[in-house]
Amino acid sequence: MTKKIKVGVIGASGYTGADAVRLLAGHPYAEIVVLCAHTHAGQNMEDIFPQFTGLALPPLQKVEDVDWSKIDVVLCGLPHATAQDVICTLPDDLKIIDMSADFRLRNADTYAQWYGRAHTAPALLSQAVYGLSEHYGDEIKSARLVACPGCYPTAVLLLLLPLVKAGLIDVDDLIIDAKSGVSGTGRNVKESNLFCETAEGTQAYSVAAHRHAPEIEQELARVAGCDVVVNFTPHLIPMNRGELVSIYAKSKSRAADIRAALASAYGDAAFIHIGATGLVPSTRHVRGSNYAMLNAFDDRIDGRVILFAAIDNLVKGSSGQAVQNMNLMFGFGETCGLEQQPLAP
Amino acid sequence: MTKKIKVGVIGASGYTGADAVRLLAGHPYAEIVVLCAHTHAGQNMEDIFPQFTGLALPPLQKVEDVDWSKIDVVLCGLPHATAQDVICTLPDDLKIIDMSADFRLRNADTYAQWYGRAHTAPALLSQAVYGLSEHYGDEIKSARLVACPGCYPTAVLLLLLPLVKAGLIDVDDLIIDAKSGVSGTGRNVKESNLFCETAEGTQAYSVAAHRHAPEIEQELARVAGCDVVVNFTPHLIPMNRGELVSIYAKSKSRAADIRAALASAYGDAAFIHIGATGLVPSTRHVRGSNYAMLNAFDDRIDGRVILFAAIDNLVKGSSGQAVQNMNLMFGFGETCGLEQQPLAP
Amino acid sequence: MTKKIKVGVIGASGYTGADAVRLLAGHPYAEIVVLCAHTHAGQNMEDIFPQFTGLALPPLQKVEDVDWSKIDVVLCGLPHATAQDVICTLPDDLKIIDMSADFRLRNADTYAQWYGRAHTAPALLSQAVYGLSEHYGDEIKSARLVACPGCYPTAVLLLLLPLVKAGLIDVDDLIIDAKSGVSGTGRNVKESNLFCETAEGTQAYSVAAHRHAPEIEQELARVAGCDVVVNFTPHLIPMNRGELVSIYAKSKSRAADIRAALASAYGDAAFIHIGATGLVPSTRHVRGSNYAMLNAFDDRIDGRVILFAAIDNLVKGSSGQAVQNMNLMFGFGETCGLEQQPLAP
Amino acid sequence: MTKKIKVGVIGASGYTGADAVRLLAGHPYAEIVVLCAHTHAGQNMEDIFPQFTGLALPPLQKVEDVDWSKIDVVLCGLPHATAQDVICTLPDDLKIIDMSADFRLRNADTYAQWYGRAHTAPALLSQAVYGLSEHYGDEIKSARLVACPGCYPTAVLLLLLPLVKAGLIDVDDLIIDAKSGVSGTGRNVKESNLFCETAEGTQAYSVAAHRHAPEIEQELARVAGCDVVVNFTPHLIPMNRGELVSIYAKSKSRAADIRAALASAYGDAAFIHIGATGLVPSTRHVRGSNYAMLNAFDDRIDGRVILFAAIDNLVKGSSGQAVQNMNLMFGFGETCGLEQQPLAP
Repeated sequence: MTKKIKVGVIGASGYTGADAVRLLAGHPYAEIVVLCAHTHAGQNMEDIFPQFTGLALPPLQKVEDVDWSKIDVVLCGLPHATAQDVICTLPDDLKIIDMSADFRLRNADTYAQWYGRAHTAPALLSQAVYGLSEHYGDEIKSARLVACPGCYPTAVLLLLLPLVKAGLIDVDDLIIDAKSGVSGTGRNVKESNLFCETAEGTQAYSVAAHRHAPEIEQELARVAGCDVVVNFTPHLIPMNRGELVSIYAKSKSRAADIRAALASAYGDAAFIHIGATGLVPSTRHVRGSNYAMLNAFDDRIDGRVILFAAIDNLVKGSSGQAVQNMNLMFGFGETCGLEQQPLAP
Repeated sequence: MTKKIKVGVIGASGYTGADAVRLLAGHPYAEIVVLCAHTHAGQNMEDIFPQFTGLALPPLQKVEDVDWSKIDVVLCGLPHATAQDVICTLPDDLKIIDMSADFRLRNADTYAQWYGRAHTAPALLSQAVYGLSEHYGDEIKSARLVACPGCYPTAVLLLLLPLVKAGLIDVDDLIIDAKSGVSGTGRNVKESNLFCETAEGTQAYSVAAHRHAPEIEQELARVAGCDVVVNFTPHLIPMNRGELVSIYAKSKSRAADIRAALASAYGDAAFIHIGATGLVPSTRHVRGSNYAMLNAFDDRIDGRVILFAAIDNLVKGSSGQAVQNMNLMFGFGETCGLEQQPLAP
Repeated sequence: MTKKIKVGVIGASGYTGADAVRLLAGHPYAEIVVLCAHTHAGQNMEDIFPQFTGLALPPLQKVEDVDWSKIDVVLCGLPHATAQDVICTLPDDLKIIDMSADFRLRNADTYAQWYGRAHTAPALLSQAVYGLSEHYGDEIKSARLVACPGCYPTAVLLLLLPLVKAGLIDVDDLIIDAKSGVSGTGRNVKESNLFCETAEGTQAYSVAAHRHAPEIEQELARVAGCDVVVNFTPHLIPMNRGELVSIYAKSKSRAADIRAALASAYGDAAFIHIGATGLVPSTRHVRGSNYAMLNAFDDRIDGRVILFAAIDNLVKGSSGQAVQNMNLMFGFGETCGLEQQPLAP
Repeated sequence: MTKKIKVGVIGASGYTGADAVRLLAGHPYAEIVVLCAHTHAGQNMEDIFPQFTGLALPPLQKVEDVDWSKIDVVLCGLPHATAQDVICTLPDDLKIIDMSADFRLRNADTYAQWYGRAHTAPALLSQAVYGLSEHYGDEIKSARLVACPGCYPTAVLLLLLPLVKAGLIDVDDLIIDAKSGVSGTGRNVKESNLFCETAEGTQAYSVAAHRHAPEIEQELARVAGCDVVVNFTPHLIPMNRGELVSIYAKSKSRAADIRAALASAYGDAAFIHIGATGLVPSTRHVRGSNYAMLNAFDDRIDGRVILFAAIDNLVKGSSGQAVQNMNLMFGFGETCGLEQQPLAP
């Protein structure tokens, strides 16, 4: 029997932190031994999230009060900018899986440009591996610091990376219309996240200004071999979880070829579904699970195709991919702790 | 004081029919004297829609049992295909405002191609006026049969017609990603409309095959002077009402110019709002009302702009525009019966 | 033609304030000339609520900057406790319709007990008239300060007052299970009002401790002639608007008698619907309108009946009743500005 | 290693059937070898429920086409009345866990009275064991046919059975106000289940006439030793899953004693949580899981207490409890296949 690794979660009182706890609680080879949440230090997880009642979880602590020497890996669910300040204080031999945006952009200048502040841990930045599990598996296996992709980039890149690599779609005119459930904005207590400001309505946000755009462009540029600028337009949908990206792309190929290319690229991937021909991916196909549902359709405009990817923004888009990366880093089966089937309805 | 006109509503048990009744009940110059609903004939509206309790509405009848001789105008909310069969039985001097798709496509062949059946009233088809109130006002004023646009085409064309006319955007690469509340699919009792199949999730539907595409293309072609093929991809959003179209268009102009062009085109229009610079149109800005909220943004891709229009699919997208057209046809103030402010939250 | 009265709204940036503006904007005899919102002073309503785009509304001001001398009446939508501090600064000859809880409890000691602070304007308290329009119409007509009932008490008392008066139900064992949409908690930016904390779930709140209980008990005691203690258990429902109270009461009468008593009590009331026999009141019967839908059913337990009332918490439960009271105070028709039919779906 | 049992699911295209498949797919000692769905026979589960893409599930069959000889147990998710007609055709040595209402009422006359038809398999009825896992564990272990309780009775009885047994509450005046997500009504394609008829609103249904009342009364009567009639008033809540029962009961005890009695009764129960003092049970505490969250509060009315239970209607209220019963019948650990933590948000 495999000995269990000792895992910590920082930022356990946020949605991604809590979802990591939900998944780790059922992981056969991981034991949660440290939970950190700054303002809630001293409380128990079940005081904040009563759904965890009955689990024997450690009490919430401040990061600075933790003895990290016995911990194998930490998942970090802190807000952007805070993460880098905390992570740079952790011991060098502690493996870190970060779910914030702090280590995703490989270039500190790009970071500064989009986040409006200089990166405070550029040395760590150059060390970080981009944690898109299906595409950077080898680097992740040997990484000390993994930067899990944003939820939108995860969905977008799972679709586009194999197609751009294969030369099947153009990168010069990519329109990405994205739709996310409200948990995508985190547990921030702000007016725009109130039920009455989000239920029974929809709208775009961060138009031509969302911070996931440079992350998408960075990764597409690497495989395209040229600079890429995309249209990325996220919309807020009145649902808790779920993320759908609808991508409108120029292509000389037809949907059938694209489906074939995706199937070929993801033949062995445990979490990637290519829908049957004509199946329109829905967020309800993946809710609560680590799966992604992809598909492609011919457009009526000549030379264009329509691509869809649906994921759960908190799972494959964050804590699930973090656990998947942990599995890669420690040599566990890739699906350990992630076997839950989607919850529908 | 203006004498009240006598109005009938056919298909009163559907959502568009009922919403027409809601609006007409408060109209200062219209009196509802006939209500038709085939399977519910003999019942009262409040038996089906208890929200109408207390209104003195006529009982539901079958169309064939109505004496139409005293009626000035009828609003027809029947399903597609049924509408043409019923409307061709109505007296020649009865004005008709049809909310179905039956008389929107000016070409019977296009109709047959998209609806999979020959049009059974081609003579009426050639008579029909396309009821986009802000753009066909003059024709509507003297029309006998007005074909109200589909909900999606209403939102799309309010945005695009002035811009295409002004040569500000290209028509050869229009990407229209649309989002609709579930009432957009009508009151059809089918599995995909169940709460548990639509709540807490989102997905596209009728990909590259939605029947509102040819309607949009028909109207754009008239102003563009050439054939037009658009990408039109509707998505189902877990909300009752509301429709948002996100349009990604090639343009040599910038958003500021486009906003100016829209403002100029709609200077006098009572129901068209151009949002302040940077305001992202939301369906909650127009819920329950006849308003449309439009706006434009610069894309990060050179030579592209992002356009949004939000309407209430049942009001401006159907029964509200029908009442607006009725006002035009009878010389009433254009806002009569349509003064309700949006309901938010 | 009646001259329009000049109306102010204080607390215009909250949900009840904004809903008052929505209703007043369509009132034939009222003109909004002053809008106050402390932290938003200097902005326009459409900056905060874009649904008001196009209405010619005055800019937002601070209360202390207003010249009240030309104003006929003010509707006050401030939070509890704040309201009393502001209202006591207003001129003596200004009529005030308060939508907060500050002047509902007639006894300053009861106020102090439930609100945990001494009332700072006890003189005003003794002047205030309880603004349940259908039951205190005469007092309201001549009042200077009207305290609009809470949303729950409105629904509960519309059902119970006539029945207790008529001796049809017992007051000693009233179980009131109430359900409210999230707007009932106001526009407070707090964690429990976030979409992800309220959507797709339900729970009770303020169990045996909600501040609407003493208000209900105060009014029931007046007609019962004895002290009353009720069970009042509110639940949060994932919807924007709407309030349903399910009351379980001991009665020697049957539902038919109770329905008859309600019909008799509300024969002339414009906004009170008694549902047809067997019709179960739903919040969707009244959404966005000033109506209440009431009904009664026999329980299977001998000697018990089940009563329901549905209202829109922001309209009949707050700003709509405020406008109705304004109509009474100024001798307008009771339905002026409140003619909107319910919005369903 | 334990050999896997061979399991069939009848009615696999309904919500309870599909949720059973979701849970069984992760069960360490069960293998799904037969799936039945009458109208969908010949299709695959993933054609109907794309969330099952990638699972190696058997194709859907008709019940009469199955060779049952190698099957150990079948979970039956057929609609009421249909279930008895199908189950009586199954081999005598096949263990059956029925999720319908057909075998819950021990008395065929009571069945006939509430379901309006004579029971067609009264011999089976007398054989059936009531499958409330925590209370009938011993009978379930040796049962051939287990009738899983209704979702509402599960929540109600988990709360009340220990308290009635202990003499802590009276059974003569029980008010049970229940709230359910829409999946509680099944996947029936009927108007009242449409999104637009259920979203953004709430109402009671089956007032004083719901078929779960006699089931609750039957079980309470057994422990009370006398006939019981309860008020049971279910309400439909705009959410997919989740069930909350709010029970108003006469009691000489206080909430603290009741909490203690519940804790004592369920000391060893894996799925029963007694919330911390003051914690109000929410459906989001149990979503997607087999847990129940219980709690008790003092009422302000003397001699009364307020009790709450929250479950997921499709899991603990149906398929989860079915799997729990299967575990009991085959000697597996009670939590096998049911370890998923609740999904929140």
